[in-house]
Amino acid sequence: MPSTVSAMTDWIGLAEEVAAQLKADAAERDRANRPPAAEVELLRSSGLLAADEDAADAVTRIISAADASIGHLIGYHYLHLWRAQLFDNPSVATRMRADRNWFWSGVSNPLDAALELTPTSDGFIVNGRKTFATGASVADRLVVSATRVDTEEKLTFTVDAKAPGISYPSDWDNTGQRLTASGGIVFENVAVDGADVLGAQPADSIRLSLAALGFQLALTQIYVGIAAGALAEAAAYTRGQARPWILSGVESASADPYIVAGYGELVASLEAAGTLADRASESLRQSVAAGSDLTAEQRASTAVTISSAKVFSTRVVNETTSKVFEFMGARATATKFGYDRFWRNARTLTLHDPVVYKAREVGQYFLTGEHPPFTGYS
Amino acid sequence: MPSTVSAMTDWIGLAEEVAAQLKADAAERDRANRPPAAEVELLRSSGLLAADEDAADAVTRIISAADASIGHLIGYHYLHLWRAQLFDNPSVATRMRADRNWFWSGVSNPLDAALELTPTSDGFIVNGRKTFATGASVADRLVVSATRVDTEEKLTFTVDAKAPGISYPSDWDNTGQRLTASGGIVFENVAVDGADVLGAQPADSIRLSLAALGFQLALTQIYVGIAAGALAEAAAYTRGQARPWILSGVESASADPYIVAGYGELVASLEAAGTLADRASESLRQSVAAGSDLTAEQRASTAVTISSAKVFSTRVVNETTSKVFEFMGARATATKFGYDRFWRNARTLTLHDPVVYKAREVGQYFLTGEHPPFTGYS
Amino acid sequence: MPSTVSAMTDWIGLAEEVAAQLKADAAERDRANRPPAAEVELLRSSGLLAADEDAADAVTRIISAADASIGHLIGYHYLHLWRAQLFDNPSVATRMRADRNWFWSGVSNPLDAALELTPTSDGFIVNGRKTFATGASVADRLVVSATRVDTEEKLTFTVDAKAPGISYPSDWDNTGQRLTASGGIVFENVAVDGADVLGAQPADSIRLSLAALGFQLALTQIYVGIAAGALAEAAAYTRGQARPWILSGVESASADPYIVAGYGELVASLEAAGTLADRASESLRQSVAAGSDLTAEQRASTAVTISSAKVFSTRVVNETTSKVFEFMGARATATKFGYDRFWRNARTLTLHDPVVYKAREVGQYFLTGEHPPFTGYS
Amino acid sequence: MPSTVSAMTDWIGLAEEVAAQLKADAAERDRANRPPAAEVELLRSSGLLAADEDAADAVTRIISAADASIGHLIGYHYLHLWRAQLFDNPSVATRMRADRNWFWSGVSNPLDAALELTPTSDGFIVNGRKTFATGASVADRLVVSATRVDTEEKLTFTVDAKAPGISYPSDWDNTGQRLTASGGIVFENVAVDGADVLGAQPADSIRLSLAALGFQLALTQIYVGIAAGALAEAAAYTRGQARPWILSGVESASADPYIVAGYGELVASLEAAGTLADRASESLRQSVAAGSDLTAEQRASTAVTISSAKVFSTRVVNETTSKVFEFMGARATATKFGYDRFWRNARTLTLHDPVVYKAREVGQYFLTGEHPPFTGYS
Repeated sequence: MPSTVSAMTDWIGLAEEVAAQLKADAAERDRANRPPAAEVELLRSSGLLAADEDAADAVTRIISAADASIGHLIGYHYLHLWRAQLFDNPSVATRMRADRNWFWSGVSNPLDAALELTPTSDGFIVNGRKTFATGASVADRLVVSATRVDTEEKLTFTVDAKAPGISYPSDWDNTGQRLTASGGIVFENVAVDGADVLGAQPADSIRLSLAALGFQLALTQIYVGIAAGALAEAAAYTRGQARPWILSGVESASADPYIVAGYGELVASLEAAGTLADRASESLRQSVAAGSDLTAEQRASTAVTISSAKVFSTRVVNETTSKVFEFMGARATATKFGYDRFWRNARTLTLHDPVVYKAREVGQYFLTGEHPPFTGYS
Repeated sequence: MPSTVSAMTDWIGLAEEVAAQLKADAAERDRANRPPAAEVELLRSSGLLAADEDAADAVTRIISAADASIGHLIGYHYLHLWRAQLFDNPSVATRMRADRNWFWSGVSNPLDAALELTPTSDGFIVNGRKTFATGASVADRLVVSATRVDTEEKLTFTVDAKAPGISYPSDWDNTGQRLTASGGIVFENVAVDGADVLGAQPADSIRLSLAALGFQLALTQIYVGIAAGALAEAAAYTRGQARPWILSGVESASADPYIVAGYGELVASLEAAGTLADRASESLRQSVAAGSDLTAEQRASTAVTISSAKVFSTRVVNETTSKVFEFMGARATATKFGYDRFWRNARTLTLHDPVVYKAREVGQYFLTGEHPPFTGYS
Repeated sequence: MPSTVSAMTDWIGLAEEVAAQLKADAAERDRANRPPAAEVELLRSSGLLAADEDAADAVTRIISAADASIGHLIGYHYLHLWRAQLFDNPSVATRMRADRNWFWSGVSNPLDAALELTPTSDGFIVNGRKTFATGASVADRLVVSATRVDTEEKLTFTVDAKAPGISYPSDWDNTGQRLTASGGIVFENVAVDGADVLGAQPADSIRLSLAALGFQLALTQIYVGIAAGALAEAAAYTRGQARPWILSGVESASADPYIVAGYGELVASLEAAGTLADRASESLRQSVAAGSDLTAEQRASTAVTISSAKVFSTRVVNETTSKVFEFMGARATATKFGYDRFWRNARTLTLHDPVVYKAREVGQYFLTGEHPPFTGYS
Repeated sequence: MPSTVSAMTDWIGLAEEVAAQLKADAAERDRANRPPAAEVELLRSSGLLAADEDAADAVTRIISAADASIGHLIGYHYLHLWRAQLFDNPSVATRMRADRNWFWSGVSNPLDAALELTPTSDGFIVNGRKTFATGASVADRLVVSATRVDTEEKLTFTVDAKAPGISYPSDWDNTGQRLTASGGIVFENVAVDGADVLGAQPADSIRLSLAALGFQLALTQIYVGIAAGALAEAAAYTRGQARPWILSGVESASADPYIVAGYGELVASLEAAGTLADRASESLRQSVAAGSDLTAEQRASTAVTISSAKVFSTRVVNETTSKVFEFMGARATATKFGYDRFWRNARTLTLHDPVVYKAREVGQYFLTGEHPPFTGYS
């Protein structure tokens, strides 16, 4: 941790500083489409990787507003550190925070075949490949889930992202979230130290099932951040560069009645989305805090609150990032501004898993009290 | 206050009991369209009129879900007691709570000409007429605003709702909020005791300007309650009476994929609306608590947060109360169910003042930092 | 047919005259909620029951805009005459038009158990009961479908609506389409002349399957009419009675930028709905004209075009009838205006069968080419 | 005109062939972002530049569905040929069609300062610069408007796009409609033959005012085409590559109830948009056909019908091009597919002029009968 960062750190202020730097060339970096090595280095050197757990949501939103890819990376980084506490082995979770300069990523796409773990004298070797390992190729350390070939037990462990046998096919080239390094990862006889095993991940563990909710919530926070970023940049353009329409009868775009009320509509919805995301976060915090007292009902309530927040913020971010162009006008579509990246990022990330099935979850719980199943997405 | 109601009262539980009673014959009473005398008596005898200030929002929502008219009455009742503290004369505010059985209403439609106050030896006489005096004709006591004919000062005072010279034209016959007794009121030489004057209401008083925000917030809470009520009644019908569609391939309406996800979409939006209304309420509480330190900026921030909540909940309640019919089916439109009252109540009450001007307020503040003006509606 | 009505009749002009009469007291008649005997007599005496087939859509829309219940009655009247041509027995179809003063209704709710036909020496007797027989209790003649108890063949025939053994339980009391007399009907040993049988209705007859499409299209035309009526009445109110908002800075509600653009949005959508309904009508006309050359593909294309029109106009009419209140203001919710009837009528009638299953039909055809099944609704 | 193209040409079939070629590498060409020289050559060599006037709308839509930039180019090409007939000098209009291989573009951005025309012995020289001259840099011939420095008369004339003194700054680099070559144009002492002057363009000419409506309609047709293209490509992906969601319980994405009904909703709206655009086109045709009998009322009615179509199709195309991703899933956001180009094209082109002012036009005409003013956009 840089010496300037202490327990008294104003994480919000620091995040805003980093965000300002990221925002300055976000459009240019989006076009260049290079792996986000420098961006991760900026997160590291700023000290932001070490932010307190209770600042994580706010930091994630602030960075996402400036650069949704980097917001995604830091949001997941915090998530991996957070979810470590859900496992049985507290010492690993503690060691994960030993070097607060490490940038963490994870490997766990539930839709792929599982990685395979073969026991060795002092641990395991892991083999297999996964798609969509966000941030892994630019990470220091990874949290990985894999299945023992002998017992079929699913284990989660940490490993050096540059360990021998790990390779990254560089197959991420996407219309949105371009700088998230979300390509695949290949494990060929990669050694895992038994001491780095966070624990087993039985499918029916209510406590471990909270991890999937953490991912859903992190996505939601990024959506809220993207919408806020789109509104902020659009407003700056409306104030500074937009022209009033020839038939509007007003002197400036900022005085156009439709533009002003149009912003108001979107801002009101975003306020609602952000506030609900806050509430979902608090609900998850309480479910974690419940420890072994966590009931199926409390878990379901948290899951559904997070799903509500995700359903609603999905609608908000897709609508907002498209609509703001109407408050800027045709000239704002020049490539140099890159304002379309907000929509591209939103549209891409909101497809992570189909939102209508989140709406179905919410509806089932409301209508019949049915709990969401434990899956990698719920 | 009934002896069963004490400082330890579970106001939420009590509100739910009263709501259950109101809900049982809400459709029937809506059709009968009689002044809500029995309903006010129910509020009184239950002890709910004496609820703590910090339970007011929750109680208002719960009652509004069962019967939006009565929710409107009790919400405004709490509001009149709350806003009394904003004036200079604390003794009147204290005396207003002396008899917690009193049901309070107000007379202050900003769009009408002002009532006229003529000074007398020991107070004033008041003359004039006002429209839309919600609840006044069934109230015990009124909070009234009027203008001195000599100084043009605007004063606010309390008066017995049955005082000599006050009459109620019974001109309220509306498609929604039918049981709110929102007809006109006529004052003919009504005596006002000088000791009952809460204080002057100068148009530029930042503290008194919070009263208008309180009204806007109360409306918002009622909208949230109406949407919740529509969803709850619709869900009960879907579960118990709706038939699965012949082409759906499912055994019950509750298993229809479109119905389930449809509820989920509405519930997610309502969660967002309710949470934002809570946040707006907290913001208003803080602005009141700031006392003489209240700045124009803090007031503006509170005003805009309330406007955001109102803009958003307006959309939610109008959409929800109409959409839920699609989850019940054609037979749910029989008059005996009276489910259309949710939409009629929502549609009527959301016209209180035009919502697009609230969106304009939010947009102006976001785009240029402009503060909402002090008016009877902002 | 009145002597004033001839082959040269301007049906549109005549419909507008009748509509003007219906509109004058539509709100009052909606509240009175009496069986529409006088209204049917007005349709009859005007000569409008005899309108040319190619004027039917336009007349239905015009009457629906003024009074959606009566528009429903006349739309179904034209439909019963039209669908008679689809059956095998042209002489009955011809005789149905013998007295152009007759008002026709039908009995065919596909969701009820079938009526039972028992053969007699010269025809049948019919027994059973049906719900939702729109207009039957105020009709002169009925088109009825029932199933032979011996052969299980489904037959369609005409019968005098006042024939011995027919009774009407008067069980229609609804929040919308109140004046459609859509209550039940009971047949007790009602004699049917064999000469009045239009023909058999085998479930797999492609030609007879067009009848269901005719009903779907008639509903669509009524939706378009209701939306047009709501906009017309709202505009009259905005022009003549609405007040400009105090913060709008304009002199009249008609100059308010939000109101003007708001109308524009709704009008544009309604134009789209109306135009698509016209196209759907033309598609159905062509399918009928194809006669025995009608292919499954052409039938599917017509069905899907009608479903598209219904899906889209459903959204338009529900949105329009609710939104227009924002262009009128709170005072427009007084019961005396009865403007909520547009929404009540729209909301009720658009539940005829669930619209999302129509969207599913359209999507299936677009995505995979799958044809809608032959049902009472598709 | 290639010998294979004759008066009997099936323009629709030909357009579909060309569209198939364009579609094959549309994503790749969009990324390459080169001036559309080869694309214009394809249009020319196919013979499509010579399509009959009454096939222009259909061809524009078909090409726009495959490649919205090229649809824009050919739509404007037809437009320039069409609007030539509105001027006084029929011989120029005739000569414009002399070589049907010429690709026409125009120079007339109403928001820029006018080009300057200085009279010479046999014509004029023109000077000045214009922005957003769609297609000009790849055109054969241009239709240009400029203002005489002596008389201030506005004249419209044709000129060789490669004439000495004309240069193209190559300043078009945009997030959407990338291949439209919509950069600026500079005229330095460019000679204009007096015989190439189409005529004067007085601001109050009702007949010439139809040209602006033609542009608005062409944009509308392109919007309809883009939406159709997005749906067609998405459907192909859903059928061939999308995976059913793990919780869906269905075997294929094409059987997912939400995906199927989701397509249905969008298809229904697009049908409505396309049908209304057809009607708007017919209205414009009638206004042109009216010749000198064209009244202000007929012109207004045509203008408003076109505005309705534009308002509605703007909403449809922006919604459709974003929503379809939900029917394909996350993997469809890979850059190689380039499906985001539909949204980028739609979002860019629908900002041509602010759509809310078109809604205002429609609302004004509906509410008060006010005619749209004659401007470059109405």
